[in-house]
Amino acid sequence: MYVAVPQQQLKKNNMTRQELIQQIKQKQSFLCVGLDTDINKMPPSLINQMKEEYGESEWLFPAIWEFNARIIDATAPYCVAYKPNLAFYEAYGIDGMMAFEGTVEYLRENYPDHFVIADAKRGDIGNTSQMYAKTFFEGYDVDALTVAPYMGEDSVTPFLGYEGKWVILLALTSNKGSQDFQLTPLHTPLIGRWGPGNFKGERLFERVLTTSQQWGNEDNMMYVVGATQGQLFERIRDLVPHHFLLVPGVGAQGGSLQEVCKYGMNSDCGLLVNSSRGIIYASKDEDFAEVAGQKAQELQQQMAEELAKAGI
Amino acid sequence: MYVAVPQQQLKKNNMTRQELIQQIKQKQSFLCVGLDTDINKMPPSLINQMKEEYGESEWLFPAIWEFNARIIDATAPYCVAYKPNLAFYEAYGIDGMMAFEGTVEYLRENYPDHFVIADAKRGDIGNTSQMYAKTFFEGYDVDALTVAPYMGEDSVTPFLGYEGKWVILLALTSNKGSQDFQLTPLHTPLIGRWGPGNFKGERLFERVLTTSQQWGNEDNMMYVVGATQGQLFERIRDLVPHHFLLVPGVGAQGGSLQEVCKYGMNSDCGLLVNSSRGIIYASKDEDFAEVAGQKAQELQQQMAEELAKAGI
Repeated sequence: MYVAVPQQQLKKNNMTRQELIQQIKQKQSFLCVGLDTDINKMPPSLINQMKEEYGESEWLFPAIWEFNARIIDATAPYCVAYKPNLAFYEAYGIDGMMAFEGTVEYLRENYPDHFVIADAKRGDIGNTSQMYAKTFFEGYDVDALTVAPYMGEDSVTPFLGYEGKWVILLALTSNKGSQDFQLTPLHTPLIGRWGPGNFKGERLFERVLTTSQQWGNEDNMMYVVGATQGQLFERIRDLVPHHFLLVPGVGAQGGSLQEVCKYGMNSDCGLLVNSSRGIIYASKDEDFAEVAGQKAQELQQQMAEELAKAGI
Repeated sequence: MYVAVPQQQLKKNNMTRQELIQQIKQKQSFLCVGLDTDINKMPPSLINQMKEEYGESEWLFPAIWEFNARIIDATAPYCVAYKPNLAFYEAYGIDGMMAFEGTVEYLRENYPDHFVIADAKRGDIGNTSQMYAKTFFEGYDVDALTVAPYMGEDSVTPFLGYEGKWVILLALTSNKGSQDFQLTPLHTPLIGRWGPGNFKGERLFERVLTTSQQWGNEDNMMYVVGATQGQLFERIRDLVPHHFLLVPGVGAQGGSLQEVCKYGMNSDCGLLVNSSRGIIYASKDEDFAEVAGQKAQELQQQMAEELAKAGI
């Protein structure tokens, strides 16, 4: 007998590539809302209300849950996906993990057509990755999990054994540190063409893209590519023309939606563009959910324009 | 106000490099016991006892906690460190995380001279890594956290801002997948020496070792190097002569303690060799803790021989 979380199993949710594309076309949006819920950035009025209702020792879980539920209700018409980052839930311990679980359940019950990504960047030796896969795909029943590639094939494949579930592998991230290793040129024997300056070989992120295509395919694997990477999207599309890309870094991190679309969109759209802080913390007042909805709608309208340009 | 876990803060624990070396010399051991606690591998007698005591819906947390506490009591004289892998605790949801928290508290209260490593392989953009650092170093108050290097400097440095706390960065892991990217040769311009077959450059794990030394030092950073990597320890010691290495893969994964010591030990020992399955699941009977203690003692005796050879 294996007990995974939550112990009371939900109906298993799956979302195929075609269903996701259908949602994007229907909503004219490829927006993913990042639920990086931080009590220091929440509206003080909501926290005070929760403290009054639940008391000083019990307010944390309902506050995170309530914030998320109201953000979800306000933004759901304008987005196709939600992406809670586990770091923000683990930071609040048991209360935080209950809020994560509750948020996923809330989405499943009320918005079954939204794609739910657990942004956890996991990856370990095979038998340990297997435990993480059970946790996120059997327990929490999210659609997709972000996974780090450094430990190679047997750290990733355990996540690929679930029908209708997705691995989103880190390829080229949005942060400055992406330059440290991901953009490192690899040794490539250039037969007959030697000499300084003629490096035409791969960089690490390109090797990750090509190697990992032997493990999964466009129906169970996506890649994280930061919006700040500009024209490198063109190179990425040479290597993975059909895969979906999860694109963080639009907004607070400085990436441009138009540039991402120009170089990264394919004939199925092929993009999930994430915005977290720019939506969920757009207002710290009582109207926070309403303002989040407006910000999501603004992004959706820009996305609709980009989809129209591409005839999608 | 920031609420991290556990909300009732423990006294902050630190362990310096010198204190760790002192423990190794005193105990004549550099053993780390991996607490990868899996209820499917636990003694059925313990599970039945816990079900009787706590009932069908409440037994999980006390079972994991009790198993760990008894393993710890039996092995503590023979080891200097414990390493719970978060995958195994997350898999049991709220109960599992309570058991993780309780295990760390049990170690802090009863074995304050043991080094506690949370094996979580985290790493994310700066503000998110900051959340993970608060969780593990302020909340759970472990000594060290394993971190994945793929996202580069700003994903690692938030963990280095804690006095007396340690980052253990993945360098060359014990699994087969370490060949996919970690051992990949990098492009290295070889001025004046061109032609096929003369590659003398770095591999990715070597770049991780050299680059990360600009972020931390031997007093706040260690590296994960799998016991299965044999003679590559020699190369690693060229690059990081003084750093501690956390070495998984002895035992179940096939690595040899003698080989690790031959190529990896330095004048301070510089090794923490982990064994998980070979100790904690050595018996599934009621004597599981006693047998775990014997297995730990056997490893400690082998380690004492290796330390004697090196005059430590």
